[in-house]
Amino acid sequence: MTKSLFNQSAVDYRSIYVVHYSFEDVDCATAIEEFRVLLQDLQSVGLHTEVRAGYDQSLLVFAKAPRELLGSTVYKSRVKDWLFGITQEQPPPGRTVLRPEFEAEDILSMYHLVNWPKSLGGAGITPKHGKWKNVQSIFPLHNEGANRALLVHLGKRVFLKLEDLDRIRDLFGAKIAFYFAFIQTYLVSLFFPSFTGILAWYFLPNYSMAYAIITSLWCIVFLEYWKLKELDLSIRWHVKGVGSLKVNRPNFTYEQTIIEQSTGRVKHYFPKWKRIARQVLTIPFAFASLISLGALIALVFGVEVFISEVYEGPFKWYLEYLPTVLLAVVLPWINNFLEDIATTLTEYENYRTADLHEMALTQKVFLLNFITTYLPIFLTAFVYVPFGSIVIPHLKTLLQYLLGSHANFIHSEGTFHSDPDRLRNEVIALTVTGQISNFAEELIYPYIKQTAESWWRAYRSEHPTISFLPSSSNSNITTQPAPLLSDDPSESQFLRSARNQSYLPQYNVQDDISEMVMQFGYLALFSPVWPLIPIGFLINNWIELRSDFLKICIEYQRPAPVRLDGIGPWIDSLAFLNWLGSISAAAVVHLFGSSMLWYETGLTSWYSLPITIFISEHLYLLFRWVVAYTLGKMGSHQGHVKKEKDEMYSRRRKHLDELEAATEAQRPKNLGVEERERRRSVRVNGTDLFWTKQTEDGASERVGVGLIEALHKGGEIQHTKEE
Amino acid sequence: MTKSLFNQSAVDYRSIYVVHYSFEDVDCATAIEEFRVLLQDLQSVGLHTEVRAGYDQSLLVFAKAPRELLGSTVYKSRVKDWLFGITQEQPPPGRTVLRPEFEAEDILSMYHLVNWPKSLGGAGITPKHGKWKNVQSIFPLHNEGANRALLVHLGKRVFLKLEDLDRIRDLFGAKIAFYFAFIQTYLVSLFFPSFTGILAWYFLPNYSMAYAIITSLWCIVFLEYWKLKELDLSIRWHVKGVGSLKVNRPNFTYEQTIIEQSTGRVKHYFPKWKRIARQVLTIPFAFASLISLGALIALVFGVEVFISEVYEGPFKWYLEYLPTVLLAVVLPWINNFLEDIATTLTEYENYRTADLHEMALTQKVFLLNFITTYLPIFLTAFVYVPFGSIVIPHLKTLLQYLLGSHANFIHSEGTFHSDPDRLRNEVIALTVTGQISNFAEELIYPYIKQTAESWWRAYRSEHPTISFLPSSSNSNITTQPAPLLSDDPSESQFLRSARNQSYLPQYNVQDDISEMVMQFGYLALFSPVWPLIPIGFLINNWIELRSDFLKICIEYQRPAPVRLDGIGPWIDSLAFLNWLGSISAAAVVHLFGSSMLWYETGLTSWYSLPITIFISEHLYLLFRWVVAYTLGKMGSHQGHVKKEKDEMYSRRRKHLDELEAATEAQRPKNLGVEERERRRSVRVNGTDLFWTKQTEDGASERVGVGLIEALHKGGEIQHTKEE
Repeated sequence: MTKSLFNQSAVDYRSIYVVHYSFEDVDCATAIEEFRVLLQDLQSVGLHTEVRAGYDQSLLVFAKAPRELLGSTVYKSRVKDWLFGITQEQPPPGRTVLRPEFEAEDILSMYHLVNWPKSLGGAGITPKHGKWKNVQSIFPLHNEGANRALLVHLGKRVFLKLEDLDRIRDLFGAKIAFYFAFIQTYLVSLFFPSFTGILAWYFLPNYSMAYAIITSLWCIVFLEYWKLKELDLSIRWHVKGVGSLKVNRPNFTYEQTIIEQSTGRVKHYFPKWKRIARQVLTIPFAFASLISLGALIALVFGVEVFISEVYEGPFKWYLEYLPTVLLAVVLPWINNFLEDIATTLTEYENYRTADLHEMALTQKVFLLNFITTYLPIFLTAFVYVPFGSIVIPHLKTLLQYLLGSHANFIHSEGTFHSDPDRLRNEVIALTVTGQISNFAEELIYPYIKQTAESWWRAYRSEHPTISFLPSSSNSNITTQPAPLLSDDPSESQFLRSARNQSYLPQYNVQDDISEMVMQFGYLALFSPVWPLIPIGFLINNWIELRSDFLKICIEYQRPAPVRLDGIGPWIDSLAFLNWLGSISAAAVVHLFGSSMLWYETGLTSWYSLPITIFISEHLYLLFRWVVAYTLGKMGSHQGHVKKEKDEMYSRRRKHLDELEAATEAQRPKNLGVEERERRRSVRVNGTDLFWTKQTEDGASERVGVGLIEALHKGGEIQHTKEE
Repeated sequence: MTKSLFNQSAVDYRSIYVVHYSFEDVDCATAIEEFRVLLQDLQSVGLHTEVRAGYDQSLLVFAKAPRELLGSTVYKSRVKDWLFGITQEQPPPGRTVLRPEFEAEDILSMYHLVNWPKSLGGAGITPKHGKWKNVQSIFPLHNEGANRALLVHLGKRVFLKLEDLDRIRDLFGAKIAFYFAFIQTYLVSLFFPSFTGILAWYFLPNYSMAYAIITSLWCIVFLEYWKLKELDLSIRWHVKGVGSLKVNRPNFTYEQTIIEQSTGRVKHYFPKWKRIARQVLTIPFAFASLISLGALIALVFGVEVFISEVYEGPFKWYLEYLPTVLLAVVLPWINNFLEDIATTLTEYENYRTADLHEMALTQKVFLLNFITTYLPIFLTAFVYVPFGSIVIPHLKTLLQYLLGSHANFIHSEGTFHSDPDRLRNEVIALTVTGQISNFAEELIYPYIKQTAESWWRAYRSEHPTISFLPSSSNSNITTQPAPLLSDDPSESQFLRSARNQSYLPQYNVQDDISEMVMQFGYLALFSPVWPLIPIGFLINNWIELRSDFLKICIEYQRPAPVRLDGIGPWIDSLAFLNWLGSISAAAVVHLFGSSMLWYETGLTSWYSLPITIFISEHLYLLFRWVVAYTLGKMGSHQGHVKKEKDEMYSRRRKHLDELEAATEAQRPKNLGVEERERRRSVRVNGTDLFWTKQTEDGASERVGVGLIEALHKGGEIQHTKEE
């Protein structure tokens, strides 16, 4: 390897975009034709191309923009931002080529050059869509050096500063950086409930009301603070309101094309009311999901309780695993089915931009996650523990009657007591083991898998004659490489990396945000169950932040550094969890707190449960209002919101100052004598005689003083008279 | 009267501001000194002055700005708006004098010239404050012709259009115009509950659940719609965010003066947290008010019920009026006392601008109004009717025991039944008679009073020798007018009008908004009690809108046309009433609906009341979210919000187009051949060799096609082998 000829560390990742074209499913002539069009399209926007073989039957087309083209694309993007009011800073006039401020700005421009439709100056390459259905993916290359440097940097820091978030933004764009900003804000704020959690653990009774209230308040403060933080960052990163200038997603269908009179813009119109009407379908979908998933979970739950606590027949040990197996088999199936429906619904709702589509879809998936994650705990807390001792004996009797002679399988001695610790155990199990298994699932398992796969692909392409091939689809094999197929040794390392990246999946930041939101949900909904949960989350999230960064670097294609002004509708999900928490946590405390008195005395405290919930919920509403008001007052005059306003002011002030100076000279100090004379002579028979009476200098004063003396004396005379 | 010399209809009201200086309380020398300073200050900013005698011991100083000064003030105000981002429209460059778009803009500039501190280019005349404590008021003169024309116009119209609201804004400024916009929006939307109210009256049972739900939904829609409308109007009138550029109110005390590095602005700093901490005092104030007013009202209520339904002794007829008299005497006293506390608290909260101060005060007064207006109804609905039959017999027994021999005064026959129609009668009485008496109190009584007073003042100044004088303070009297004191006959009509206006009170728009909000509260809280209420309100408000306009014209000084971007915190009051309504209306329906079953069967339905409230409140929260979401989606792309964005876009687009043309020519279509040659030769031993391999035209294509053929053939060969 002649390192001097191709030094990987010097690759200019900023201006490269890779198109991964696969021709496995088409015949040779079509493939050549499609490839030619691909090349032409790329070159027509001014991109330079290099083609290399990919793994299997695929090509990697490396597109590179000359510095001038990239600079002018960056410039045009900035102008567009300014045009749509995303930034108030006008790009420097007189120049049409700009150096980007950070790597992601270049890569975003590359993405636009490759992906945007031709009408907007791009090559219009839309992977897996339309005429590009054989383009597997388009992606920028990971800047491995920068990734590694930043990862090391993140590992060393306990808390991330704004500048660290900036560096993530510089690499992966604002949309992903917002996720890291969110997890970082959440992580830092977790210190508070961790601390109070330890105190509660030592000093407070189980299911403590005080701890529940404090945690609920913390949830509110965190959410309101994040809203401000998000706004602040969106201004810092110049992405506020960036959604408005996004291009249409390819699947968006519009009813009319409108050319606006006022601005000359072409708008693709799809009636808002129609979309809203279609969104209404989400309601039956939510009900259907709740019922189907709920029925499944309730069934499994029931079987589980029955087997573990009532059943005493043969194979008990095996049967105890039955529900778990049942759930493991059926749940993914139902879930997939429901997710397909969600995708179809979202497609039908016909969003204009990819972001909106993605958000709408994610919200529906959140709904499903919500049900599968929290419903078992709700069942334990509000059905199993309080009602178990009533329902299960009946169930037992029923079963004894049904089974007849086999009734000896039924555990018959004593009365049934549902296990009040089950709630706690379940929450601990779900949170602690859940975090660990998530970590393994997200990072370790895919890493092993992909390392193996990439080794295998490399091995196979180097030993192409072997005939057993567990390859992805057609199980084809490349023949002995033609001279064309053999890599230039100086490039081989670079190409190997690129080829591996071409097979990596695309990163979806929503999944990671969803995970954090679900975690937050445990705190909001069930905090009083086990006050040490936040510590676990705190530790987990410190690792999670770094491991998620690592995950993006090694397990996914480098994401297109798309911009977004926040985490979108997750704010609403968090607010929903917060609100539901004000009910759920209160109910948990009410039912399980106070040494579980109800458990001894029957269900008397159910009477007062609605009142507890009513109070708790209204405290929540009041708190939220107060916190939002207070933070709003404190926050609106700080940070980048203020900075932006100040910048606008300064910019315009300069302008004012120039004018001020000019005006000052012209300001008429008073009516000039000549002017007054003129007026008097002109208007003496006019209508404005009133204003001509006291035009001489001091005339008003003389008249006024005279009046005061006259009137005042009058008053005094009167006084004297009266005395 | 020589009309030809002074034609009142031709007075240029736009450029006149009147300073009403009274020297009743000071000696002659001080008065002259103060007057001299006043004149100097006015003239120092370039105002021309004319002095005339006022009524009693006062002077009217007429200040008039020359056209150039006014124009340059208007210009500077526009520049300031642009500087602070209130408007995006830059004032025409190269000019420093502008004609205003409407009368109020001139008058506002006059107001600023007279009232603003000298550091901001005004004369610094702050009535009744500091060294100007003897300045009774400063005010512009009513443009009586325009007032009359607009009033006639309003009288003819059934619905006001935006242009009609514009005309009100043109006369009285945006702050007052927002009140009219609010009442107009409310008026129009009242048609819906009026219509459903008639239907409910005919077809639905009393206390109908359906009507309650529909009205609650209407309340939500109205409020959300108004929020959008307000935003829309604030953009239409170029006042969005105008609060930020308001000047300090004279009483505002600051801890530090900060000169901002970034903008060079001087800021007067008072810590936000301190203000918020002081605002916390509102909570004990609210409790104290609730307890003191609540105790009084509950006491009066109790006495009233007792006398009318239990007492049978002598003087019953007279005694029945006792509670009303008691309330009439004590309530204003307590109310005044509480309002004084509210004023002190608000002063202590130390708001920077007069608007913020006014709003904070109004909110506290709203709280008091809320208690005195609605508490009696709440007592009737939720205490008297449901519990009367339990409490009153006990009360009776107690009294019989206490009175001993006089116990024959107590109505003793039969069991007591509280009157379930009392709620309905009370609501009807309070709304219908309330509206009528309000109308009389607001318009008719003050009109008569002021007409009489002004006649009396005019009469007295023409017959100054009479000695019985019910004058305002010192009961002084003017002597026989000196020549100086007698009016020029041509001016006398004008001066009489100005003198009368100088004695009129200042208009406070908050009182009128408060009235409307309280009215809305009846609908939100008690709509199911009597579904015909909205019709009464509809009729009342049609008149109210016009009579309020008339009221401003004849009973108040012309208000300084201050700008504001909406009705401020009343939005929160409306939201609060809406939310409370979701509880109150549900409770009323639950307790009084379904043929009052509970009334027969005892209090069984109290069990389920919390559940009814819970459901109703959450339906409300859900509705509100849906309505806000839907209207937000529909509205954000319409009206002036969109127009503003489009204008910004168009403005900036022009700029882009120029640059676009320039850029297009420069765009590098592809790497030129020479460029490629140069690169190859330069970088052949460099690091970027990768990009030099396929530089010839069509090289990429040749390589790619070759690769496809090679790989595809390989695949096909493999296939053939396998077959």
